[in-house]
Amino acid sequence: MNISIINIGDELLIGQVVNTNATNMSKMLIAAGMDVDEVAVIADKREAIADTLSRTIASHDAVIITGGLGPTKDDVTKKVLCDFFGSTLVENQTALENVKRIFDARGYELTPINRLQAWVPECCTVLNNDLGTAPGMWFERDGHVVVSLPGVPFEMDWLMRNRVIPKLQATFNTEAIVTKNILVQGIGESFLSDMIERWELALPKNIGLAYLPQAGMVKLRLTAHGTDRKELEETIAERVKELYQIAGQYIAGEDCETLPELVHQTLTKQGKTLATAESCTGGAIASKLTAMAGASVYFRGGVVAYSNDVKQSALGVKASTLDTFGAVSEETVREMAEGVRTRLGADYGIATSGIAGPTGGTPEKPVGTVWIAIAGPDGVETRLKKFGDDRLRTIDRTCNEVFSMIIKNIK
Amino acid sequence: MNISIINIGDELLIGQVVNTNATNMSKMLIAAGMDVDEVAVIADKREAIADTLSRTIASHDAVIITGGLGPTKDDVTKKVLCDFFGSTLVENQTALENVKRIFDARGYELTPINRLQAWVPECCTVLNNDLGTAPGMWFERDGHVVVSLPGVPFEMDWLMRNRVIPKLQATFNTEAIVTKNILVQGIGESFLSDMIERWELALPKNIGLAYLPQAGMVKLRLTAHGTDRKELEETIAERVKELYQIAGQYIAGEDCETLPELVHQTLTKQGKTLATAESCTGGAIASKLTAMAGASVYFRGGVVAYSNDVKQSALGVKASTLDTFGAVSEETVREMAEGVRTRLGADYGIATSGIAGPTGGTPEKPVGTVWIAIAGPDGVETRLKKFGDDRLRTIDRTCNEVFSMIIKNIK
Repeated sequence: MNISIINIGDELLIGQVVNTNATNMSKMLIAAGMDVDEVAVIADKREAIADTLSRTIASHDAVIITGGLGPTKDDVTKKVLCDFFGSTLVENQTALENVKRIFDARGYELTPINRLQAWVPECCTVLNNDLGTAPGMWFERDGHVVVSLPGVPFEMDWLMRNRVIPKLQATFNTEAIVTKNILVQGIGESFLSDMIERWELALPKNIGLAYLPQAGMVKLRLTAHGTDRKELEETIAERVKELYQIAGQYIAGEDCETLPELVHQTLTKQGKTLATAESCTGGAIASKLTAMAGASVYFRGGVVAYSNDVKQSALGVKASTLDTFGAVSEETVREMAEGVRTRLGADYGIATSGIAGPTGGTPEKPVGTVWIAIAGPDGVETRLKKFGDDRLRTIDRTCNEVFSMIIKNIK
Repeated sequence: MNISIINIGDELLIGQVVNTNATNMSKMLIAAGMDVDEVAVIADKREAIADTLSRTIASHDAVIITGGLGPTKDDVTKKVLCDFFGSTLVENQTALENVKRIFDARGYELTPINRLQAWVPECCTVLNNDLGTAPGMWFERDGHVVVSLPGVPFEMDWLMRNRVIPKLQATFNTEAIVTKNILVQGIGESFLSDMIERWELALPKNIGLAYLPQAGMVKLRLTAHGTDRKELEETIAERVKELYQIAGQYIAGEDCETLPELVHQTLTKQGKTLATAESCTGGAIASKLTAMAGASVYFRGGVVAYSNDVKQSALGVKASTLDTFGAVSEETVREMAEGVRTRLGADYGIATSGIAGPTGGTPEKPVGTVWIAIAGPDGVETRLKKFGDDRLRTIDRTCNEVFSMIIKNIK
């Protein structure tokens, strides 16, 4: 069963908003055993919507559209859907009651412009939206399905989970899909590819392998398609066992998507605690870990020590260290990591200090220079990196370096 | 001049990776006076690439493709481009020297698989990639341009900035585009729309208005197209002046894209400093601010007080307060905000404490309950919010609530 996604919105085309809707929709659909083979991002214009819908519906079981709804957008999507299905706009009672309910709850009066949200093409089935005023709409023709959803991310998300996916599963026979992620660290993509080439070539036809390189690691994703989920899981487990025999020394973890997830998994499993002392990363390390439910099990807390006196008062870095070696130095990060470990009572303390840029560099310490330290029960490990002159990339790469160091130290 | 973007990659279609490439490419192209009217995300398959390229080239001046390059991907994009332009793959000397240079610098030996990266369709112009081994490729036919770039974000970014945009500007006559963002707070989209309707209807034809609602605010974006940049800037300035007369009390700022940017702008302008005491937001507030260059001017630092003893030791919250009222309470955030303000020596101290979930809720304090405080020279303001049961959304909405409170308090 294959699906095409159409995301409507000028804000997506001008680069104002990152299209997380497509990512989240794909994730949910794939997990439910459906394939997404195209995402089209188009303008809020009747012609573009009509053309893309006509083109994609022919080659897909279902087309899911987001955006282009709402009174200030002139409801352009609804008009196109009316034309496409030869229908007319009518006020839908269920949708109207939902709009009223939401306005009542917020204590606002219903304006005529908001009442328009309850108008839908007569031929559609309304998918009631518990979180917002724009209803989802479900259309069927000749065995093909078209769904229209609001573009607001959390409304789309709720409608997909609670209305669209159950209805798609009921309408189509979805096949079983089993995926497995293996995280590989310490070897480049092409070297890994050489190392596991024979294993890869011997994979059965219903198992696909994808190389997904990320900062600091390569993720291998195995995807098996078939009818019997249990059988697929067994086949994948056998192949993964073989992979460990070939490249086991580089495998850092399984069943997670990102390096922070792997840190989360490792710290939780090993029962170790962590505290962070961040200068150049400015809270990004703490933030990436605490975004995951359950972080409070291992994360004690952190200090964002952006100014020198906070490094002294909150972490106990000596004034003489800062004077002699500067804030971006091995000596400073060492004292930061030890300070945060002791003061916050954690098994491991990590510290970052660097020049994220674009200004603040010197000939000896150019923009992109970063010192990292990890303090643990066996002492302190430090590392110097030069990450170049892009601020966000330097912050991101520093985070990944820290995550790699944590995994290495704790394993 | 209109452009279509094609992003190739299974990792995009399975929801593994958010398509930031499209966002960043659009931003750069728009800023350079070119329009993007379609983004297609498709699979790493010859047929999909060939079909999408044939379809889009006819209706666009240029098509920019990312991904599907690299030895482990079987260089599927190169093969399609060879077929499409009736060319054959040849080893390109410039590209080969670049591959060798990069392997030399990293101290790796060049493997046959890596040498393949220097093979390109004979008819293309190589766009040398200073940051990676996969070259950019430039094709022309009948006045249409096709560009192929690697999908690795920072390589794509560098090639766009340094190779593609200058060459597009030299090839096509690009028109002048002037944009202006106005940030509106404290009024819903539909009410705002009613209020400024007459002004909007009177805008000249070459000025477009977009409503871009975000968490906590509505962004109005004016876009003017024409030949004379200076004239466009003057026209926009006049219209913005009118807008202030109509809706001035709701205008929170100009010329920034997001709420954190507005906080950054406001604190910098007013010369005030900030310190953060974060529990449920786990460093996200500090991280969003320090992601922006120049944050060190106003950001003193912060404490991520995830555990109760860190709230006591690092922020001076009284044990009796935590015992009597709990960590998620008005009394606790009040002491956190005052503590971080005093200890870190800032004009303003903010604090968050809540139950991000999915577990940890109680009947009195369900998941999503968040207390926020801002301490300043005139005392402490506190706020209680109930954000529902999605962890990331609760963190994000808490950040936005804090940013709104900072702006209101400082203005």
